[in-house]
Amino acid sequence: MHTMDHIETRIQQIRERLEHLDLDAFVVSTPENRYYLSGFSARDIALNEISGYLVIDRERQILLTDGRYVFQAREECPLYDVLIYTDNPMKAVAAAVRDGNPGRVGIEAYHLIVELYQRLVAALEGIEVIATVEVVEPLRAIKTETEIEKIRASVNLTEKALDQVLPRLKPGISEKQAAWWIERAIRELGAEAVSFDPIVASGPNASKAHHEPSERRLREGEPIILDIGSRLNRYCSDMTRTVILGTPPPLFKKVYLAVRRAQEKALGSIKSGMMSTEADALARREIEQSGYGEHFLHSLGHGVGLAVHENPYLRRTNPVEIKENMVVTIEPGIYIEGWGGVRLEQLAVIRQEGLEVLNSDKGFYLFETSD
Amino acid sequence: MHTMDHIETRIQQIRERLEHLDLDAFVVSTPENRYYLSGFSARDIALNEISGYLVIDRERQILLTDGRYVFQAREECPLYDVLIYTDNPMKAVAAAVRDGNPGRVGIEAYHLIVELYQRLVAALEGIEVIATVEVVEPLRAIKTETEIEKIRASVNLTEKALDQVLPRLKPGISEKQAAWWIERAIRELGAEAVSFDPIVASGPNASKAHHEPSERRLREGEPIILDIGSRLNRYCSDMTRTVILGTPPPLFKKVYLAVRRAQEKALGSIKSGMMSTEADALARREIEQSGYGEHFLHSLGHGVGLAVHENPYLRRTNPVEIKENMVVTIEPGIYIEGWGGVRLEQLAVIRQEGLEVLNSDKGFYLFETSD
Repeated sequence: MHTMDHIETRIQQIRERLEHLDLDAFVVSTPENRYYLSGFSARDIALNEISGYLVIDRERQILLTDGRYVFQAREECPLYDVLIYTDNPMKAVAAAVRDGNPGRVGIEAYHLIVELYQRLVAALEGIEVIATVEVVEPLRAIKTETEIEKIRASVNLTEKALDQVLPRLKPGISEKQAAWWIERAIRELGAEAVSFDPIVASGPNASKAHHEPSERRLREGEPIILDIGSRLNRYCSDMTRTVILGTPPPLFKKVYLAVRRAQEKALGSIKSGMMSTEADALARREIEQSGYGEHFLHSLGHGVGLAVHENPYLRRTNPVEIKENMVVTIEPGIYIEGWGGVRLEQLAVIRQEGLEVLNSDKGFYLFETSD
Repeated sequence: MHTMDHIETRIQQIRERLEHLDLDAFVVSTPENRYYLSGFSARDIALNEISGYLVIDRERQILLTDGRYVFQAREECPLYDVLIYTDNPMKAVAAAVRDGNPGRVGIEAYHLIVELYQRLVAALEGIEVIATVEVVEPLRAIKTETEIEKIRASVNLTEKALDQVLPRLKPGISEKQAAWWIERAIRELGAEAVSFDPIVASGPNASKAHHEPSERRLREGEPIILDIGSRLNRYCSDMTRTVILGTPPPLFKKVYLAVRRAQEKALGSIKSGMMSTEADALARREIEQSGYGEHFLHSLGHGVGLAVHENPYLRRTNPVEIKENMVVTIEPGIYIEGWGGVRLEQLAVIRQEGLEVLNSDKGFYLFETSD
């Protein structure tokens, strides 16, 4: 449940951001941002069939939508004036913007398509239109306790789904079949959707970070990466386990332990106030010390919330400060072409004293190199 | 299976379109268009995580992608030069475009987001960038027999899924539950995905054309609209049935028969060479004669193919010529606020002599008003 308090605070925060960015008004089209700032829950049908737009300026907040959503909009968004458009959303948005007499208006450049943008610019002739990025996203990166509990519930549902499916994984089952079982379990446990198409990557396929499940059949002794997530009450989860059928060969154990050490290092050391690049480096150094530095092919993690990939990004480059109540994945990985890979991913909240892991399981095999 | 012949013909046709539009080069980002023109089957992760771009000019066709997809790209697209980008796709696309020395370059305004567009425009300084719409889409509207067979297979799969679920629909089942059963059946019958989230709308909810399945429970004597589709071998289907549990009340029969007459009229009269507006009018007049003219709240139909909504659109406005081998939905509906609605939707190919329905069932109750 959104409380109106949250919405009111968020609108207030956006007004401060607009002031800071010297924008007199702001047009919101990104579905996650629209929901975050208004509570309007309708989904978009397509990139050019958007269910509604917000216009926020120094004094007003307006939700523009079409007739189908009007009752829903009024019910869900009591803090907003609800305006209806019929055939030309951009004209209606422009009219609503104009009413506030702005000099500079921001739009969301990471979501709006060129066709709608050009219509809006034409309808706003005489007003400066600024293509902004990251106006609402930095706010979304800091979660309320209510949001954190929703994310935790989404993680727990995903874990439960995996628990149901893991015992059914046997040699001969295809990656596609396993991916569908996971998706079905996630849905039947009550999630609205998977937060992304499940990744099941076995053997050599596990060396590709974004492998699409194929007809390849699981075999004994090969790494199997399961990267999965749910969307529950609109909040996403994202977790990765690497499993093996039969006896783990020495290389698997070695690689697995290197990834596990990197993950434990990151989970034990990251805290609020640290830069994202330093967080990434903590895990990366650990993997370098294991001799696999060149095989950690992606960044350490990313934020998760209304979107499954969102701020902050824990990368080698683009430093941002890690702050309290951010929710991030910690997902080091090692990939060896032709053989496979290991990735382990937990979801954690940044707390003052360090990380709080949202997963209820530890997420890894406990075998030691001496096994 | 794409045959290379088809790809070669399509590239040829696009070159003619570009000539006609006075464009020297064209950048393709829309996933369906990219697949249609190249056979490259990778999916996009997000609006700003696109798996590849095509650059087509008078002499060259180039596929730009990142390292993850390079083997796949080379294998799937032998007619294309495959180029790899690392961190800045738009810079790479611009460089590929520049190599052909163009004066005017088209981009796809219905897909590209403002942020990528502005980067591309900056990187193409000195070259005119035109925001185009409907360059590839009109070609996609005319199907080959291979494509028609794929769409037929997708329709048949959807019918089979519905056949499995219909007997399980009983009073007390929620719309959401029914929608999930349909989706699960579609997936377990081998579809890649549903072509859109299934619509299950019962009683008063059936008066809303785009109702999202809710916790409302099915009851006897109320209309239940089931609007569903699959994506199989990348091709979509889309069909609607309106059913009732228990004895149909007189109003249901009356409305149902009015919709059925309109659908039969359209299916029996539409032929190649007709304008889309006339097709729409045929069904609309029929519904007007039944006294429900004001209650047919949407257009008669739309094309279906790689996308579930595509050209041609059979609307009251925007006339386009209906041509042989187009595949369109024929879906009249009547909606009465507070009571519900009836929509019946078949998928049909335009043949020289008239429509060929792709559904294997007639799709409606045979009761007569005199029942």
